Amino acid sequence: MLEDLKKEVYEANMALPANNLVTLTWGNVSQVDREKGVFVIKPSGVDYNDLKPEDMVVVSLDGHVVEGNLNPSTDTPTHAFLYRHWTDLGGIVHTHSKWAVAFAQAGIPVPAAGTTHADTFYGDVPVARRLTKNEVDSEYELNTGKSIVRAFESEDIDPMAVPGVLTNDHGPFTWGKDAMDAVHNAIVLDVVAEIDYHTMSLNPSQDIHVPQYLLDRHYYRKHGVNAYYGQNTH
Amino acid sequence: MLEDLKKEVYEANMALPANNLVTLTWGNVSQVDREKGVFVIKPSGVDYNDLKPEDMVVVSLDGHVVEGNLNPSTDTPTHAFLYRHWTDLGGIVHTHSKWAVAFAQAGIPVPAAGTTHADTFYGDVPVARRLTKNEVDSEYELNTGKSIVRAFESEDIDPMAVPGVLTNDHGPFTWGKDAMDAVHNAIVLDVVAEIDYHTMSLNPSQDIHVPQYLLDRHYYRKHGVNAYYGQNTH
Amino acid sequence: MLEDLKKEVYEANMALPANNLVTLTWGNVSQVDREKGVFVIKPSGVDYNDLKPEDMVVVSLDGHVVEGNLNPSTDTPTHAFLYRHWTDLGGIVHTHSKWAVAFAQAGIPVPAAGTTHADTFYGDVPVARRLTKNEVDSEYELNTGKSIVRAFESEDIDPMAVPGVLTNDHGPFTWGKDAMDAVHNAIVLDVVAEIDYHTMSLNPSQDIHVPQYLLDRHYYRKHGVNAYYGQNTH
Amino acid sequence: MLEDLKKEVYEANMALPANNLVTLTWGNVSQVDREKGVFVIKPSGVDYNDLKPEDMVVVSLDGHVVEGNLNPSTDTPTHAFLYRHWTDLGGIVHTHSKWAVAFAQAGIPVPAAGTTHADTFYGDVPVARRLTKNEVDSEYELNTGKSIVRAFESEDIDPMAVPGVLTNDHGPFTWGKDAMDAVHNAIVLDVVAEIDYHTMSLNPSQDIHVPQYLLDRHYYRKHGVNAYYGQNTH
Repeated sequence: MLEDLKKEVYEANMALPANNLVTLTWGNVSQVDREKGVFVIKPSGVDYNDLKPEDMVVVSLDGHVVEGNLNPSTDTPTHAFLYRHWTDLGGIVHTHSKWAVAFAQAGIPVPAAGTTHADTFYGDVPVARRLTKNEVDSEYELNTGKSIVRAFESEDIDPMAVPGVLTNDHGPFTWGKDAMDAVHNAIVLDVVAEIDYHTMSLNPSQDIHVPQYLLDRHYYRKHGVNAYYGQNTH
Repeated sequence: MLEDLKKEVYEANMALPANNLVTLTWGNVSQVDREKGVFVIKPSGVDYNDLKPEDMVVVSLDGHVVEGNLNPSTDTPTHAFLYRHWTDLGGIVHTHSKWAVAFAQAGIPVPAAGTTHADTFYGDVPVARRLTKNEVDSEYELNTGKSIVRAFESEDIDPMAVPGVLTNDHGPFTWGKDAMDAVHNAIVLDVVAEIDYHTMSLNPSQDIHVPQYLLDRHYYRKHGVNAYYGQNTH
Repeated sequence: MLEDLKKEVYEANMALPANNLVTLTWGNVSQVDREKGVFVIKPSGVDYNDLKPEDMVVVSLDGHVVEGNLNPSTDTPTHAFLYRHWTDLGGIVHTHSKWAVAFAQAGIPVPAAGTTHADTFYGDVPVARRLTKNEVDSEYELNTGKSIVRAFESEDIDPMAVPGVLTNDHGPFTWGKDAMDAVHNAIVLDVVAEIDYHTMSLNPSQDIHVPQYLLDRHYYRKHGVNAYYGQNTH
Repeated sequence: MLEDLKKEVYEANMALPANNLVTLTWGNVSQVDREKGVFVIKPSGVDYNDLKPEDMVVVSLDGHVVEGNLNPSTDTPTHAFLYRHWTDLGGIVHTHSKWAVAFAQAGIPVPAAGTTHADTFYGDVPVARRLTKNEVDSEYELNTGKSIVRAFESEDIDPMAVPGVLTNDHGPFTWGKDAMDAVHNAIVLDVVAEIDYHTMSLNPSQDIHVPQYLLDRHYYRKHGVNAYYGQNTH
């Protein structure tokens, strides 16, 4: 079942090593089929060189395997919770990309420090707070998903306008309208983390945020009804 | 029309990913035909892998599309203003190359800290100041061009001797006698930004500028009537 | 003799340049055959491009060449001592990978600062202390091995749970159940050193260690009887 | 004339981009034929992709072109002076490799901070002091050579034991028994500069030098009559 979706998810997973976002077998991408109420995700711990479209695992939105001979990614309960809670999400990516992880380990949001950031993320990429011992000892991966949602709800951030997060001590999750869009956002997040790291070092005593009006201009140049970037504009 | 120019501009655009100056679809290169009063520029938001010479868009110097089925780069009004104002410019490049953007976001000029810089840029690469809300809300891309020119005129810098700038909060623009020359300058700008970042970190308490006489020697070793670098010297 | 083992060791050695862990001829990998009481190791100072499986050198556990026309790696006595002392080791890797060496030269352990680290190393990767003049002037490579064992015994660290070390002034050694597993650990060590360096710089005043319960969760998600990462779980 | 030498020098020049030591046309390698009293060097400002063995230029030891249709590297007088002054030199390399240039611009020697350095350079790689206006305005490239020799003589450093230098405000020169050996030393210099930069940042308040006895051990493990590294040992 779902041959086309498996192929799309396979290709989005293969885009992670192609864009230098993963080491070894790390990282995973999924995409949801809202009508069928399932999502397709990378199997756990498989080498990218050995991965095939038919290895992708079909999982129900409550996190049970529906089809597939391989174990799904251990992060599957995180994906499932995000799909259940945020119904606009079409695809999700998790990586250990180096610059985003550096910020995640430091517990510091990736600041909206320039137009490179503003073109994709409408504001800082927030940090989901450190999980408690209880949250880690019980349903760890589910609680990771819950902590992500809390980070957005507590600060009233729209997850479709800021399509990514850093989980403290861990690394980034990004999402989008489909798997490849989520990969796009994972690429941008790591690049802006890298650039921002150096900007912060060059200018340690100053707030490096762009003004709100420039954030607005660049974000809405690419998103929404008045967008005029690219070829599908109004 | 302008098949040869389109091909040159296409090749200069493709030189950006080949030299690791771009992520995704970011960046754009143009070249002007002064006789015909038009310039050719990359279309907006097209994947470099899909780009073809015939996709290049022909634009008049006042910024209107003369030929082409695709939307030109959103940065087209910036290019047009620079061509109108500085009549020696033959080609223009805009990128989000990582090291130059780090300086642009920090609002710090790239200092002339060594002969690597002096061979191409006769002095610091300046920062065009942050745009105001009015400048961003109205004709943003045009005002970006105006801010660049102001940065040079206010400090009496010759744009042909310092063929590049950092736009604050945004990133670098470089230019040259043609598109490929502007790409050359974009490559050098990112390399010297990278090296200078590390020099500044190694020696934070000291002015790292080269003495003026060494800047003179290296710049004029490569430029002007007494140049003796390369094969086309006098 | 030992054609299969030589091939495995050859392939593990070739994985070092493939994963950007070596410059020039630096680095070496070995794997032991416990039944025969020998290990196979890279010859000294041979270019990776010229290396062939049959060039691998067979060495007894007391460090004497048993078979091979080439000199074994100068680090052979270090490998031999580790195999003799820690009988669970199947493979050993030594590199001068850049980030791990930066920490080794600084004499600073690579901190368990995130789940990326916790998935592979159950705690900080320790530093074996600087050797004395006597230790360097006499059997230097043997004494390197002894200093590694002392670093683990003095702090009661299980070498199979923390499969790597930094030798002060020098660089990393990693190990594992076989040569390729040791290469895996060498890759992870350099990546976490790189990420931790940036985390420490972003957050210089704060302890960046993960809490013990998260270290437990991630390490035991991948190791031991309750592991549930990957395809060979219980 | 000198077909074999031209081929060797060509290959050594091509090893610079292959090892990521150059940007654009920067960098040059030469090798001397002491019997004939000439050296062969890269032409000035030629793209590495266009370079051919027959483009190499033959120059006399007093710096005059003996054969070749192209202008030799502008750094030719520096090479010539070093060959005249240090008669053990067989090959010379000049690059603008990024990490070595960062130290050169900062005016800071690359410290002997680990065994990676000690294997190739028997002590810190020194900085030749900034040239005066007179030195730059007159025979700049010759005076660069003189400043290099002064840096070694004033501190009584053996150029064959420390086969490289940083020229202040400029970049590295390395040398060796032939062109490819000099390239080897250029590779090592940039790698140790990169690693040392990070070590200095991790440990800013501490002297990061290796003890003299470890410098001795590693250097003499590879050099001199008691060397035991590699396959050509005694």
